[in-house]
Amino acid sequence: MKPSISYITLGVDDLDRAVAFYRDVLGFPTDGIVGTEFESGAVAFFPLQSGLILALWPRESLAKDCGVEVKPRDVSSLMLAHNVSNREQVDHLVAELRYAGATIKKPPRELFWGGYGAIFQDPDGHLWEIVYNPHTAS
Amino acid sequence: MKPSISYITLGVDDLDRAVAFYRDVLGFPTDGIVGTEFESGAVAFFPLQSGLILALWPRESLAKDCGVEVKPRDVSSLMLAHNVSNREQVDHLVAELRYAGATIKKPPRELFWGGYGAIFQDPDGHLWEIVYNPHTAS
Repeated sequence: MKPSISYITLGVDDLDRAVAFYRDVLGFPTDGIVGTEFESGAVAFFPLQSGLILALWPRESLAKDCGVEVKPRDVSSLMLAHNVSNREQVDHLVAELRYAGATIKKPPRELFWGGYGAIFQDPDGHLWEIVYNPHTAS
Repeated sequence: MKPSISYITLGVDDLDRAVAFYRDVLGFPTDGIVGTEFESGAVAFFPLQSGLILALWPRESLAKDCGVEVKPRDVSSLMLAHNVSNREQVDHLVAELRYAGATIKKPPRELFWGGYGAIFQDPDGHLWEIVYNPHTAS
């Protein structure tokens, strides 16, 4: 299996709320909710870098499609990271997110491995790290 | 915020088991578990396409780092998709995964939107779809 991921689909409890957060707060481009003509089809896509696509889909739809149960949320199973090229960008993005009312779990701080980063949650609790990695930054 | 994801970190309950699955069953390249010199540092990285990195990290470490609780697993919050370029590749990969003992949640099947795909779970229950999308395939 070629080491690649084409779609990252996040299960959400309120699709409108999640789309509003990713589109209006994070500023990710999207055509909005599509697929409403299909049962369990309502979904929103956000094209990211290099063919990678972020999708938001109701947890009920995802669970039904995959043959699993919807259980109370566990947010410790996933963290997405958004790398930036300097510390100031971490501070700046976190200030914007805080202003927009996002949940900041960890303010910008030094990380044990030499990085500098902060952690926030989307409206469904999905964890995101905004991080500057001095070892890989150009 | 630029629409990009640098790292996808999956929280796992048994790091050795998860690394073995991604390395030996899926065939993803890795240097194995690194960072063991740091408290909660043990992690494994798998470079994917275009700078995207998949990381496996114990859920306890992830939760501690992010200031969240570890709760019973909920697998309905995430699905990763691996797109392939024809239906035969879906069948072939699923046959290999089945032979390797992976949990196949949905065998290869026609999808309502015109695709053809199957769903499996990694040892921690993280959902993966192997899918052929005739609308985007070259």
